[in-house]
This record gives sequence, C-alpha cells and structure tokens, in this order.
Amino acid sequence: VGVRLVRRPEGRATEDCFELVERPVPQPGPGEVLVRNIYLSIDPYLRGRMDGAFALGEVVPVRVVGEVVASRHPRWHPGDLVWGFLGWERWSIVPAGDELWPVDSGLGPISHFVSVLGMPGRTAWVGMVELGRPGPGDTVVVSAAAGAVGSVAGQLARLAGARVVGSAGTADKVAHCVERLGYHTAFDHRRSASSTGGLAAALQEHCPAGIDVYFDNVGGPLLEAVLPQLNPFARIPVCGMISGYERTDDPGVRGLHNVLAKRATITGFSIYDHMSGFAEWQRRMATLLADGRITYHEEIWEGIESVPAAFLGMLAGDNLGKRLVRVNPDPTT
Amino acid sequence: VGVRLVRRPEGRATEDCFELVERPVPQPGPGEVLVRNIYLSIDPYLRGRMDGAFALGEVVPVRVVGEVVASRHPRWHPGDLVWGFLGWERWSIVPAGDELWPVDSGLGPISHFVSVLGMPGRTAWVGMVELGRPGPGDTVVVSAAAGAVGSVAGQLARLAGARVVGSAGTADKVAHCVERLGYHTAFDHRRSASSTGGLAAALQEHCPAGIDVYFDNVGGPLLEAVLPQLNPFARIPVCGMISGYERTDDPGVRGLHNVLAKRATITGFSIYDHMSGFAEWQRRMATLLADGRITYHEEIWEGIESVPAAFLGMLAGDNLGKRLVRVNPDPTT
Repeated sequence: VGVRLVRRPEGRATEDCFELVERPVPQPGPGEVLVRNIYLSIDPYLRGRMDGAFALGEVVPVRVVGEVVASRHPRWHPGDLVWGFLGWERWSIVPAGDELWPVDSGLGPISHFVSVLGMPGRTAWVGMVELGRPGPGDTVVVSAAAGAVGSVAGQLARLAGARVVGSAGTADKVAHCVERLGYHTAFDHRRSASSTGGLAAALQEHCPAGIDVYFDNVGGPLLEAVLPQLNPFARIPVCGMISGYERTDDPGVRGLHNVLAKRATITGFSIYDHMSGFAEWQRRMATLLADGRITYHEEIWEGIESVPAAFLGMLAGDNLGKRLVRVNPDPTT
Repeated sequence: VGVRLVRRPEGRATEDCFELVERPVPQPGPGEVLVRNIYLSIDPYLRGRMDGAFALGEVVPVRVVGEVVASRHPRWHPGDLVWGFLGWERWSIVPAGDELWPVDSGLGPISHFVSVLGMPGRTAWVGMVELGRPGPGDTVVVSAAAGAVGSVAGQLARLAGARVVGSAGTADKVAHCVERLGYHTAFDHRRSASSTGGLAAALQEHCPAGIDVYFDNVGGPLLEAVLPQLNPFARIPVCGMISGYERTDDPGVRGLHNVLAKRATITGFSIYDHMSGFAEWQRRMATLLADGRITYHEEIWEGIESVPAAFLGMLAGDNLGKRLVRVNPDPTT
C-alpha cells in the first residue's frame, strides 16, 4: 500500500494529485531487501520535486525508518532497524546497490532518524553552525522557527550564545518557540505582515541591534524585510524557500543592494553535500538531546491513508515540529 | 580649487549637484601635510555616497595620487609621491593622523596607484581570486567587463584557466574586451536586453555550459538573467550594483530560488575589509602588468573643471577602463 503522485500540482497541491495504491507485499529478489516501513517522513522540500523531479505514477520517494523483514543482501538481516530513501508506502523493496543506513535505537527513539538525528537535524546543524556561525551577542532570526529544521537551528544558535528571534505562522507556534524551544523572542509573521509597519516593523521591534544571521526557510517577503536590517558581515544560509513553492509567479526580492552595503553572504545549501562525519554528528546531537539542551517535537500521524492530508496540511503550515506518519507498529516502543 | 557636492541627486545625478570652488592654496598646520594632487579618481561607488554619506557643501572625498610639497609631519617630506583619501581638488591638506601611503614609481605609472595597483585592481583580485575562485574549465561572466574593476577581474579569471565572458554596454567596449583584454567572448547587454530572448538568450549563447562565477558590478536585470543559468556551487561576488545607483525604485530580483537549487553563494564585499597584504599584492600585480599578462587601460581627462562631466559620463557608461582626471603635472612623465 503506498501513495503515488498521479498529477503535478499547478500552484497549490491538492488531494487529487495523489492516489492510494494497493499492492501485495513484495518479495525480495537477489541482492534485495524487504523493509517493513514504520515512520514515513513528511517534508516541505518534496513539494518542489513534484513539479518535475518525481515521476508521475510512482510512489513518492521519501526518507523512511523501518525494519528489515527479509533480505537477500549479505549486509542486512531480518530484525535490523534501518533508514533510507524508500517511499510513502508500507513495504519497500530496496534494490541491490541502493543504500540503507543502520538505526541505533540506543541514541533515541527510532523516529528521530528521519527527524532530529536525521536530515532535518543535520540540515539545521550545517546551516546554523557551519554557515550561519552565530557567536555570543549576535542576533539570529530563524524563519519557520517551530518547524522540523528551524526548531533545531534556533536552539543551536541559543547554545552558541546568540540572541534568537523566531518567526512562525500561528500564535501557538510563537508560544512554543518561546516557552519550549528557548527562543528569546518570537513573532507571528502572518499577523505582522497584515499590521501597520508589516514585517519590517516586527523585525525592528524584535531585533533592535540588527540581524547577524538569518536562517532562511521561506524566502519571499521575510527575506526582503530582513535585508535592510542586516548588520555588517551578516550570513544568510538558505535552507528552503517554502513561501514560493506553491506560487506560480515570482514577485522578486527587493533590496539586494543591502548584500553589498553590508558585505553579507547568502548561501544556498543542500544537506546531501555535507554528509561526511554524519555518524559522529549523530552521536553529538544525541548527547544534546539526552542532556535536555535540545528539545524536539514530533507530530506522529497514523496510517498510510493519512499521508496526503498530513502533507497538504504541512504545506499550509498546520504542523508543529516534525511531522511523520506511522504506517506499521514501532517494535521499540 | 575643488569640486563640492552642493545638492543631493534625485535619481540621476546632474551638473548642478556640483560646484567648482576657488580657494587659495592652503598651508599645513602642525602635523599636517600639503599635497599637490596629480590624479583624481572617478569612481561609480561615489554616486551611492552622494545620497547621504558625503556632506553637502564639502569637496567630494576620493582617492588621489599626489606629491608632498610641504610637510609638518615627520613621516613625509617634500617630493614624496603619495596616495590617500583626499578629494576632488588640486591641493589637499592632510590632517595629522589621516593616512597617506607611499607610491613606488618603480612599480608602474603613478596613476596606477588609484587604478590597477590601487583599489580597483585590489577589488578585482579579492572578488575574483578570493571569492569567485575560478578554476580551469569554469565559465566566468563579468559585468562592466571593460571597466576599471571588471577589466582586471576578467583577465584574472582567464589566467586561472576559465572561459571568460564579458558583458559591456557598447560595441566598442565589447570589441575591447575580446581584442585587448583576452575575453573569450563578450556581448553588448544593451543590445541583448532589447532583442528577442533578451539577456537570458545572450547568456545561453555565450555560456553554453552554464555559469560558475558571476562577478557582479551591476545587479538588476543581468543578475536576474544569470541566476537560472548558474551551475551547482556557483559563486557570485558582488562588487557593485551600478544599475540601481540612479534608480529611485527597486523592481526586485526574481529567481532567487536558484541560489538554493544550485547551492550558490552571493557575497557582497568591500575592499576595505581586505587590506592586509596590500603591499605584497601590489608587487604581484605589478609583475603581471610588466609581463603583459594583464593589460590595463586608463582614460585621463585634464583639469579640475572636467571632473563633473567625467563623473556623470562614467555613470552613463561612456568610459573605457579607469577614468582619472589630471589636475597638476605628473613629475614622473
């Protein structure tokens, strides 16, 4: 049973872009592994790939945590917990040569291997620690501040001694940022955008000393509002531009001359260029989680049939933290 | 005799923003130095500062090469050739504490100390060699390719083994790029912008393998046309955004999502953050000039009264290479 992409979204994605497909549980051929998927990842970046990169008629490829149930590959055995690029489906066949990685359940809940101990956590680390490089006294703004990546990015900036300002899309998320995630302050960008002064006024109020790092998950109007308030040598790691994913037009970003005036750097990055040292990084992050220095929130939905609604809702911003769908029981809980 | 800023430009700068002022030759007070200015620099970046940074009623501060004629400072003696931030004037008093730097006429014509052996040359080096980092086989696009900075940036990219593509604003400049500066190819951005396919088509034609480095002197429409044609890990050092200096609106730059998709880096820089190792760099650049590996063109206008026209013409793009105004005889020629 899986979820296939059957129609490319035109602008906003809709339920009818997806179709639930029923298939018998497949059997592994020579060199193949059969994985019983447990947690399926629900990620904003998938939306961009639905415009062309993902094949129509195929199950949507996503990161999954699962358990090997049958193997004709010498590396893997029934009972092994693994993660890999499988798909929005309950059972996956992994062809010879495709990669799986081990899941060490001693480091944390196995769902973490597609969240804070997986790509979202690693993305936050690379973007904030390696590209943003916040230091004591810096002002750091994080967009999508309560999300799967932003929530970790903000906490890493706080641990580096920065003053951390979150932008999120609901009052609940703003409260979560300040009360649970340790942001120094946060604002509701939807409310700010429609009030007098707009996003610029909100940033001025929350960043009286200017902005040294802007961790950009959204692009668009918030990036435009940030540019004039940058401090010299500001860094803008660009992790996502979700504000544009469902737009068919592109109004452009004004004020780019501030990049010159402030000698700022804007860097787009993809986590797949930063995979060396991954296992060592996982242990480091697991320690921060175990110590309580990083808090992480997962929203777990149930059942393969909930995948389209979980995904569409996340694009509309109704998630808090990392959204996952559990499609088979987790044997470790 | 000097040129004062008497009115802030509204959009396009005009002659009546400037006024020629006559003053007796000043005499140095304690700790001061009197410099007989020889070459005054005419730079695009001055336009931006006329909107606010430069004081109204004052002589416009610019880089100058001159000769010390009287000194009450122990470091400097009559006959010393120097450069520094003096002004659009024939004689300058340098207050105690303000900095002058020595001009070694053995390294080249003394005018070079405000051009290829001065800030424009150093800017090209930092932007291209240190931030652009072109390598063999890379495609490098340079805007304002025949200008004071761009002409050096393009040649440095060629020396690094890259394929170098110039954008310039007249047919003469395009010919100069290819015939004199060693660009592999070049195009007239004004002509391209008004033809079918616009700047995008010109870039596609001249950069069939995509763009690895874009040395940006202009911002605006050319930057927008470059973004979709970037290769992975492209670098965009931003040296100037001259296309916006005389505009009062800002139409924005579309396609910034390409920065994310291509994991590109946009870096604004100011040469004053990169002054360490300057003397060593000057010797290196002088060697490249002496060997003929770098060619440099200066346009020398005569007389302080020609300064406003020289400056306004340069903003309109009528210069080829570096524009200077000679206001007193050069004793070394």
